[in-house]
Formats: sequence, C-alpha cells, structure tokens
Amino acid sequence: MNIGLDIMGGDYAPLEVVKGLQNFLSEHTTPAHFFLFGNESQIMPLLQEYNIPASSITVVHAPQVIEMHEHPTKALKEKQQSSIAIGFHFLATGKIDAFISAGNTGAMLVGALFSIKAIEGVLRPTISTIIPKEDGSNGLLLDVGLNADCKPENLNQFALLGSLYAKHILGIDNPKVGLMNVGEEEGKGNLLAQATYPLLKENNAINFIGNVEGRDVLTNKADVMVCEGFTGNIILKLAESLYEITHRKNIQDPYLERFNFENYGGTPVLGVSKPVIIGHGISHAKAFKNMIALAKKMIEANLMEKMKDSFTSK
Amino acid sequence: MNIGLDIMGGDYAPLEVVKGLQNFLSEHTTPAHFFLFGNESQIMPLLQEYNIPASSITVVHAPQVIEMHEHPTKALKEKQQSSIAIGFHFLATGKIDAFISAGNTGAMLVGALFSIKAIEGVLRPTISTIIPKEDGSNGLLLDVGLNADCKPENLNQFALLGSLYAKHILGIDNPKVGLMNVGEEEGKGNLLAQATYPLLKENNAINFIGNVEGRDVLTNKADVMVCEGFTGNIILKLAESLYEITHRKNIQDPYLERFNFENYGGTPVLGVSKPVIIGHGISHAKAFKNMIALAKKMIEANLMEKMKDSFTSK
Repeated sequence: MNIGLDIMGGDYAPLEVVKGLQNFLSEHTTPAHFFLFGNESQIMPLLQEYNIPASSITVVHAPQVIEMHEHPTKALKEKQQSSIAIGFHFLATGKIDAFISAGNTGAMLVGALFSIKAIEGVLRPTISTIIPKEDGSNGLLLDVGLNADCKPENLNQFALLGSLYAKHILGIDNPKVGLMNVGEEEGKGNLLAQATYPLLKENNAINFIGNVEGRDVLTNKADVMVCEGFTGNIILKLAESLYEITHRKNIQDPYLERFNFENYGGTPVLGVSKPVIIGHGISHAKAFKNMIALAKKMIEANLMEKMKDSFTSK
Repeated sequence: MNIGLDIMGGDYAPLEVVKGLQNFLSEHTTPAHFFLFGNESQIMPLLQEYNIPASSITVVHAPQVIEMHEHPTKALKEKQQSSIAIGFHFLATGKIDAFISAGNTGAMLVGALFSIKAIEGVLRPTISTIIPKEDGSNGLLLDVGLNADCKPENLNQFALLGSLYAKHILGIDNPKVGLMNVGEEEGKGNLLAQATYPLLKENNAINFIGNVEGRDVLTNKADVMVCEGFTGNIILKLAESLYEITHRKNIQDPYLERFNFENYGGTPVLGVSKPVIIGHGISHAKAFKNMIALAKKMIEANLMEKMKDSFTSK
C-alpha cells in the first residue's frame, strides 16, 4: 500500500511529521511505502537525520504550503504546487491509497469533497471523534463539525458510516447506535432529533438503541453517537479543553489521559471514496504515528469498499 | 420575605429538604419566613426532630404528591392538592415571594409558565446552569433544556436575562456575553447561530464579545454563554456525568469538585415574573440549603423587577 503524507502540514511540521514517520517505521515490520509531499530542500536533511530508509519513501517536491489562515477553496485553487493540492492529485489518480495532513483543515475538507468525491449515495460526508468511555472502551461521535446544519437523512447516513467505522476500525461487533438527544423517550428533542428517531428505528443496517443524553456520552450506553455537527463540535472541543485544563492543573489519571487527542491521531473523513485523515494543527510525532497507523488500518480493512457496498445495497 | 418550599419534592424528600432548611437557618441570622408545602403528618415529626423553630415556618398541608414519572400538565390539573400545585397557587397570589421544589421538573416548568406567567415581552422563559470556570470564577450557560428549538430572538433575550442574572446574582460586573458556536469569526455556525450573531452585536443592553467555542466553555472568555436548549442540555448533562465519573474513579481535585451541582442548588426559571427554583431530583440537604440561599438572593436583589424594567425599556 502507498500512504501519502503531507510533510509540511501542522504547526510543528516538518520535524514532528518526520519523527512520527520514524516512530511508525520502527514499530512496524511490514510497513507501507510512503509518499512524502513537501519542500525537498527542507525534507531531505530531516529524513537523513532521522534515518528514514530511502527504500520506504518517495519524496514528491511541493514548493508551496497552504498556511493555516488561508481561505481553503482559494488556496487550493491558487497553490496547485502545495503539498495538499499535490497530495490530493496523487490520491485522486490512484498513486496513493490514503492521504494524511495536519495542515489547513478547510483545505483538507475541500480536497476530500471535491478531489476524490463522496461515495455514491452519501449525501454529506462527515467527520467523527473517538470518545473515551468510562469502562475503557472507545465510542464514536459524529458529526463533529463538517455539517453544522443537518437533515434527518444526513444523521441516518452518519449512523451507518459510523457503524461501519466502529465495526471495522474500532473492532466493535454490532455497534450500538444512539441518537444524541435531551431525553430518553422517543418523541423527545428538537425538531431534527424528533424527525431522525423514526429513520434510525427503521434502519435495518444499524443497531439502533434509542436516544442518548449528555450524561451517556462517556458511558457505554451507545458505541456510535449521532448528532449534527454543531452539537458534536461543541462536545469535541469541550472534551479537548477539559484535557488541557486537567493537564494545566496537574490532575493525573489514566482515564483523563485518554482524552489526549494525540492517542487517536486524526479524524478520517467518512463518506468519501478514499481514506483522508485530517490531523489537529498542534499534532506532534505521536499523533502522526497514530494517523499513519489509522490510514494503514483503513486500507487493510478495505473500509471504503465496505461503505460503498452498504450504500449501493440500500 | 416569604419563601415557599416543596417539602415533598425530590428523591430524598422530605428528610433532606428539612435538613437543608435546618442548615440554612443555622447559618443565617435574619432569615426569611418559610411556607412548607407537604403532608402534615409526615412533616411535623421531622420538623421537631430537626428543631426547626415554629416561628420561622408556616406548614401548608398538601396531601398529594406529583410523582417523578407523572405527566406534568395532567398531574398539575388532577392533583390540585399537591405540594407543587398549592405552592404555585401561593406564589401566584402573593402569599410567598419565591417557590422551590426538587420535584417533577416538568410540573415545575408548567407551573412557572402558566401559574405565574412570563415577564411581558419575554417570548420564552429559560433555564440556565452555572459553569465552573478554570480561573475560579463562575459562568452561566443558557438555555439548558427548556427550549430545544429556538429562534434568533429567543437567544437574544436569553443573553439579556442571563446578563442580568450574572450581574445581580453572580456579582459579575458588565458580564461578557458569548454566542456558543463552532468557530470564532462572525458568519460561522449553523443557520441559527449565523442569524443570532447580528442581533447580539446590535443589542446595546448586553456586552457581546462574539462567538465562543466548546473549548471556551470552561475558560473566562465569556461569562454568559448563549445557545438553544438542545446543545445546552447536552453540555450540562455531560458536565454532570463527568463529575460523577471522576467521583467513581476517585479522581480528586478542587476544580472537579466545583462540578458538583449541589454547590449551586437548583436552576432558576428566568423570564417569569417571580422566582421559581427547580432542584435536581437527587438533591440532598446541601442543594436545598443553596436553593434557599439563591431564592433569598433573588428576592433581595429584586431581580425579577430588574428584568421587567429591562424588557419594558426595550
């Protein structure tokens, strides 16, 4: 398999990307081949310094960088020689099987939606986050910000995409799907949740267990928790900030440590036809290593094909 | 002042209500007079046991109780002799100046909305929660569940109601108001947030500082954070569950301890013409003591009159 890595993406790039790659290579005996997109003159000395074997990599020179503050669509159009633009070109043309970047999130999303397109039948691709559950397991919350306004059918599709991800990547058999809501009973909630409930209930491709409330997010009531991206994004960023606060206050506990996003690497865009993983701007080596591991897992699990099959058979 | 207390409301009533009253009386030298609504034969022995002075109280016999699972409107109509129904009657007729109950939340809300009515000009009353900020201060989040679907004007009104509460009850001078959102810049967010932003910006009665994200909830970026009740309720219940989890996992820290809802007592219904405070079903003595202290403070601050003035002068 060929994994594409934006060496220039992220606040601590290229150094931390290269260190993440080194860490991955040192832990995996039969690794993938890597396509590294970035400025050759910056990358080469680093690759040497960190003993990245030349046989494992192909460096693709990308003289431009899309900066964090740039307008995504405009930057992607104007900076055709940027690491993100070239990376998506390689992904779209099949030269790589997955693309990873911790660069401009908006540009990554635009690239994912327009360079490689949504799976046929998927109305809106989505992004998710891993939720560390109290009992030690992991759950999945989606959407966490790509779709601030949703229709009931969008949430119904997120439920299926999330279930497939939970099953094939998180290893959860027959994942329980819950609808994020403000009460337990059917009929509770805002208009969107009220209209979504019956769709989820009738969806035979998922294991719907009913509504989940804020108090259920961290428990094992549901494995896959579905909401629009407004609520999901606020939950995600609240959880991230809580981790930072406990760190600043030096509150130490293995459970709180699981809220460190670097454990999970990045966010895959679900519902598009090829694996695209978006990293947090502040990613360090650990996050990059985990993003690479996630890309490998998504390719090996043939996740995108399974998603295509599910949407074709519907 | 006369404070009404539903002695039968809550999972641990009447015992914990009486204990909370005792704790309050022992800490306040010039207290209010209390009207206690409940079953006389159950209350009397407890009042004696806990040495509640007869001069401080008037017991109002209420032979019925609205149970936690009952349908609010139906129960209030059919159980006219319940502690909640009689309490609201006393409040509506001016015999008491505030009413507190940890009983059926729905019945309390219905009572607040229909027995004593909204302040003129207030489209939708709201409920809020105290948010313990990292820096030691307290913030206010609203709505937290009374209004799952909102219009921009509702959120604009919540901002004013919350600001008045923050100023006069929490003691925050010129409270900073933030709009809960998924990005920093104006124009970000779902349709509701996008439409609400300009209203808040133009509202001269509040100190609007822009959008706040999930990561800002626990920081001091804004004192009053405004959202619809769907998102707010999920944040509230997530925070409550987090407190419970840290307790179960024996993670101890003064900051996490501040997430114990009993510290704040209950939730006042804001935007109605008289103080109504709704307690958590699982309230113990500490929560009741704090709810009484809050009712006293709301009466002393003349908060409802200040709210009426603000909405009249608009």
